[in-house]
Amino acid sequence: MITALKRLLVGSPMTTAQARHERLAKIPALAIFSSDCMSSVAYATEEILLVLVLGGSLALQYSPPIGIAIGILVAIVASSYWQTIHAYPSGGGAYIVAKENLGTLPGLIAGAALLVDYVLTVSVSTASGVAAITSAFPALFPHRVAICVTCVVIVMLANLRGIRETGKIFAVPTYWFIGCLVLLMGGGFYHLATRGAPPPPAEVPAQEAFGLFMVLRAFSGGCAALTGIEAVANGVQAFKPPESRNASITLAWMAFILGSSFMAVTFIAYFFHIVPHPEETVVSMVARQIFGRGLLYYMIQAATAVILLLAVTTSFAGFPMLASLMAKDGFLPRQFANLGDRLVFSNGILILAGISSVLLVLFGGSTHALIPLYAIGVFTAFTLSQSGMVTHWWKEQGPRWRAHAAVNALGAATTALVVMVIAVTKFTHGAWIVVIITPLMVLGFYTIRRHYDSLRGQLTLRGFVPPKIGRHPVVVLVGGLHRGVVTALTYARAISPNVTAITVDLDPTATSRLQQQWQEWAPDVPLVVLDSPYRSVMQPVLHYIDKMEKQRDGDYMTIILPEFLPAKWWQHLLHNQTALLLKTALLFRRGKVAISIPYHLD
Amino acid sequence: MITALKRLLVGSPMTTAQARHERLAKIPALAIFSSDCMSSVAYATEEILLVLVLGGSLALQYSPPIGIAIGILVAIVASSYWQTIHAYPSGGGAYIVAKENLGTLPGLIAGAALLVDYVLTVSVSTASGVAAITSAFPALFPHRVAICVTCVVIVMLANLRGIRETGKIFAVPTYWFIGCLVLLMGGGFYHLATRGAPPPPAEVPAQEAFGLFMVLRAFSGGCAALTGIEAVANGVQAFKPPESRNASITLAWMAFILGSSFMAVTFIAYFFHIVPHPEETVVSMVARQIFGRGLLYYMIQAATAVILLLAVTTSFAGFPMLASLMAKDGFLPRQFANLGDRLVFSNGILILAGISSVLLVLFGGSTHALIPLYAIGVFTAFTLSQSGMVTHWWKEQGPRWRAHAAVNALGAATTALVVMVIAVTKFTHGAWIVVIITPLMVLGFYTIRRHYDSLRGQLTLRGFVPPKIGRHPVVVLVGGLHRGVVTALTYARAISPNVTAITVDLDPTATSRLQQQWQEWAPDVPLVVLDSPYRSVMQPVLHYIDKMEKQRDGDYMTIILPEFLPAKWWQHLLHNQTALLLKTALLFRRGKVAISIPYHLD
Repeated sequence: MITALKRLLVGSPMTTAQARHERLAKIPALAIFSSDCMSSVAYATEEILLVLVLGGSLALQYSPPIGIAIGILVAIVASSYWQTIHAYPSGGGAYIVAKENLGTLPGLIAGAALLVDYVLTVSVSTASGVAAITSAFPALFPHRVAICVTCVVIVMLANLRGIRETGKIFAVPTYWFIGCLVLLMGGGFYHLATRGAPPPPAEVPAQEAFGLFMVLRAFSGGCAALTGIEAVANGVQAFKPPESRNASITLAWMAFILGSSFMAVTFIAYFFHIVPHPEETVVSMVARQIFGRGLLYYMIQAATAVILLLAVTTSFAGFPMLASLMAKDGFLPRQFANLGDRLVFSNGILILAGISSVLLVLFGGSTHALIPLYAIGVFTAFTLSQSGMVTHWWKEQGPRWRAHAAVNALGAATTALVVMVIAVTKFTHGAWIVVIITPLMVLGFYTIRRHYDSLRGQLTLRGFVPPKIGRHPVVVLVGGLHRGVVTALTYARAISPNVTAITVDLDPTATSRLQQQWQEWAPDVPLVVLDSPYRSVMQPVLHYIDKMEKQRDGDYMTIILPEFLPAKWWQHLLHNQTALLLKTALLFRRGKVAISIPYHLD
Repeated sequence: MITALKRLLVGSPMTTAQARHERLAKIPALAIFSSDCMSSVAYATEEILLVLVLGGSLALQYSPPIGIAIGILVAIVASSYWQTIHAYPSGGGAYIVAKENLGTLPGLIAGAALLVDYVLTVSVSTASGVAAITSAFPALFPHRVAICVTCVVIVMLANLRGIRETGKIFAVPTYWFIGCLVLLMGGGFYHLATRGAPPPPAEVPAQEAFGLFMVLRAFSGGCAALTGIEAVANGVQAFKPPESRNASITLAWMAFILGSSFMAVTFIAYFFHIVPHPEETVVSMVARQIFGRGLLYYMIQAATAVILLLAVTTSFAGFPMLASLMAKDGFLPRQFANLGDRLVFSNGILILAGISSVLLVLFGGSTHALIPLYAIGVFTAFTLSQSGMVTHWWKEQGPRWRAHAAVNALGAATTALVVMVIAVTKFTHGAWIVVIITPLMVLGFYTIRRHYDSLRGQLTLRGFVPPKIGRHPVVVLVGGLHRGVVTALTYARAISPNVTAITVDLDPTATSRLQQQWQEWAPDVPLVVLDSPYRSVMQPVLHYIDKMEKQRDGDYMTIILPEFLPAKWWQHLLHNQTALLLKTALLFRRGKVAISIPYHLD
């Protein structure tokens, strides 16, 4: 039943031989890799306005210069990654670049930042996508958390089916979204040219003093636009040869489209005097003012929702891949390195869906609170990755290495500055959480690695003397005498010549009846009766086993528990759970093997 | 740690030899057995007024005749139980009396009604006790659910310690409560005599049409006063000899005090024109009007709260005892028949506390909704018990049996009539739930019994031929070669000459390394490599075992799983759970024994 459901939802298993890389041309590659990055256009402008409006509507006039600053930042970071693509044609994620060039600790910090980032991308993008839907259909607003979680589950199932199939569905909506952005820009500037800017609305009073700090905080919010820009550099291997060249051209296109459309939305929002609103997104307000609530408006909202949900898919590819790399290095549980039966890292996908759904529920489907956490992680990874590249060029000392190093150094310095700006201006707005979580995660990585290292040492065969088993004592635990017990006694006799039966005396009548029957069914096996003044079965049995410890021959001792297996699950509740408790207790004692001999009932 | 906490909370274990009956004189016995019954004085009057007030304040004048009717009912039921005490000196609960005289089905119906009744007594009495506290201290009203659950947990712990110790704490508060009732009556009638009745308050408008149906519904509510009256009959064995005589005298006293104080409270409430209020109990309003918010008022409230919590204790004695009787008859899971290490039926106590706490939380600490369920169960048990007594006299045909039978027949007829009145008038107020739950419970009892019966048949040794084990095949599941695996191989060789190792080929490099090492460590054991196109471990292993099935010698086959046991619990999460999954899968296959050979890590 469960298997059939799984097959229906995620498809038939695929053989290892089916794992081959689908190579992408530039047009579909741009679609796949840019959805995460492009989708941030849907909320980055809003993040700027949400901060500035605290300084009153007059402060909103600072949004264009902030938009330009972020546009420049996009250009710097993209140039920096252009170089990474050429230096790491096999894929240069921040974890690998930082680990190889800067050492394990920076690599793990980048890894922690990226893992957090992927989780937050899923939460933030889902919530923003659903916000685009609820802006168009306000009646759905109260149900946004349920819609968010449903979306995460759908994307999770799509990813459990495998990335090859999900690849196909990217191109149409991404280009549709880019088309919508062009439409929005054209329509916006046409509207401004022909009908002029609308009159400014009633002035919004300031809630906080306006100043440089607020501008920097608004800039920090807008930096969310850059999330996902590293995707191409992580996935160079997915391009058709020549991989690096195709990937870098794709990156350049992506950066251009991102920078221009983000700045355009910011400018249009400025000219239209948009004031952010909790129940409608900025993009929705802009589109509504330009096109009215007509077909074009709904088309733009739909495209925004879809691109954001595609961005979620990008994280579903990135998180499990990074987790599997870290698991292979021993920093995460090995289960993350297992390819599932559809050739995807199923455990990573499930964990990602679980954590991000919890965040969506906890934050009630509102993402503004999560964006500072998100941006600080992304820029930390950028900084470590670019710094790693500087070291890389310096180590290689190849032709024109100084020029290459300078480009990455600019990228590293700029993104480091942004990290500091975000950390300071958003510290009380949630950035402090990153300061706590990142070291804890790194500590966790080291602890896991230490465990695996110690395990290898303890399990090595070098100098190992196998234990002596010999005529090892076998103890059969007996309640009454029935088919299951006789079966267990037969098994015990077959595996050792040294069998003893023990029973706990809870009821003298039953015990003496057992002793009489014993002569008929197992006269060759001594039956030891244990007293139990406190009516416990566990205590006397464990006490007897510990006593036997001293007399045993060989290093191991076997305890046999006859168990009958009812045909229906609920019937298990009708039997004492003593066997289970006893097995658990024995697990923690060295040199004890506990065996359940099952006797199946109809 | 857990053991130490348990010892602190419930005390040291007690030996079976310590189980002796504490015999009670009449004075402490009255205290112990009457708390449940007496405590209903705290809410029974209120239940009458809550119905009548729906007919407007004029309808409240019908409370005195209803009170008198219930007083008569007390006398009839008490006379009926007087006879039960003499006929069943070993204790005649409704389950036993109905089962012995009327048959299994009526016995089980009575059992179901009583179990529900005990659960509801805990919920209703706790909630009423806490209502007495929150009436005196209205600031606590918002926290009533938390206070209720805390009280249940405290009473549960006291009962896990054992009834002997809890017995001591009964006498003082019960007599204190009786004293308070005398004080209330005296004060009330003195107030009326000297100062006359207070002027009637503003008239309350009618919400429903007043009529006979409403009077009967109010009567149904007031019947809650009788709950607990059967307690003495259940516990005759606890009295000093002559048991029956002492018990019946105690019953008479209890009935007299109950009837008179209930009627007195009803009359006083009538003369003082009390209108029920959701945040203050009727007893609290009466006491406040007579004594003001002074010391006497708080004393009465405290006594009410304490007696109600003692009533809870009565259920904590009754439920586990009844559950153990029914478990011994095979109608409930056997775990209910186990005496815990403090000589109490711990499982019953824990289950009772759990269910009643859930009810308290679900109903938000308000009990009025539960009282119809409660009363119908109690009166069903009364009816079945009294009918059983009629049959008993008829079967015995002893001296004056007709007179005895007539008394019980009157009791049975009256309580049957009350059951019908409650069922009809309260049907839409929750009594319908009883109509659903009781048959379901009885069905459950029969299902459990049928399972135990079938079990006995399937496990009988008559005609049993023990299975053949012989040179049974032992299969060792191998991942890589390490100390744990070599230990498992050594164990396998010791228990059978017919050992095979199997490994699943997930990584060709690792597999060929394993095959090379194999020659060094286990050249005598054949190593079978299983293909796994879908990278699953489970599927190929289960497939291989099913294939072996046909070739095996003997009826059993053993599968050995080497397991290493990390030193810390969280380290278990870092290892694949394949062994556990495999063991679970093997559990459902006949003739398979799965053995984990533990290798302990530091």
